Amino acid sequence: MQESSTTRLSPLELSAWAGFLRAHSALVRELDRELETTHGLPLTQYEVLLRLDAAPEKRLRMSELARSVLLSQSGVTRLVDRLERQELVVREPCAEDRRVLYARITGEGRRRLARARPTHLAGVRALFLQHFDEDELRSLAAAWERLQPAASA
Amino acid sequence: MQESSTTRLSPLELSAWAGFLRAHSALVRELDRELETTHGLPLTQYEVLLRLDAAPEKRLRMSELARSVLLSQSGVTRLVDRLERQELVVREPCAEDRRVLYARITGEGRRRLARARPTHLAGVRALFLQHFDEDELRSLAAAWERLQPAASA
Repeated sequence: MQESSTTRLSPLELSAWAGFLRAHSALVRELDRELETTHGLPLTQYEVLLRLDAAPEKRLRMSELARSVLLSQSGVTRLVDRLERQELVVREPCAEDRRVLYARITGEGRRRLARARPTHLAGVRALFLQHFDEDELRSLAAAWERLQPAASA
Repeated sequence: MQESSTTRLSPLELSAWAGFLRAHSALVRELDRELETTHGLPLTQYEVLLRLDAAPEKRLRMSELARSVLLSQSGVTRLVDRLERQELVVREPCAEDRRVLYARITGEGRRRLARARPTHLAGVRALFLQHFDEDELRSLAAAWERLQPAASA
């Protein structure tokens, strides 16, 4: 076992960690470019539509939405503004508590998402999934599973 | 081999892909929280200081800096504004071509980076690296290597 330094990573540590960051950055950039070019929908907006479409009653509280998105940890309010201007999402107050705001995906939002989805999934397969066989996908899934308690601590 | 659908991912594909996005999001969020709490330095600012410190002459053109950072694909200009206000970075024009702007890390910027680095590396080890043995780190590094041509296509 190598000694671990407090001021630098070993070459192997660096390949595993910086490679992870680089892969994420390059994948997200390319998937965003594809969606934007083909459907005029940035990946961050696509993800918001996806979360709302999967939610019960097709809506989430703004605070739940902010917690659930993985790509835009700040700026969910502005994202919803942009989606609302395109009439893909509406904001609506909660009937029981008028201080609570929901974001709901509209019919047009669902149609836009449905059109974009095949492009996005084809991109995820071409850029990521197809580079691994089933055993490798299982190892990756297990790795993410193992990180979970630490990462969400 | 399973048939691949154009409208959804299989459970295994989803665990490998969504797990990757979730792991990245959780790790970045936690590493950012640690650096911000301990050193008042968000992870995105830390990364800018790191790139400048590693560059020849401790400076990069703004355009090179924007390409090299992995965590803030938009907004490098605003990041440099914030670092400049704290006197951790200065902007300077190129002697040969006054239209070209460089960002350079200051002495104070380098001291701030040096203080933050052990915290950051300890976090990367605790949250990511220590969950894998050497063989697993090698597999991960190989996976990122394999994605590279596709992801940067």
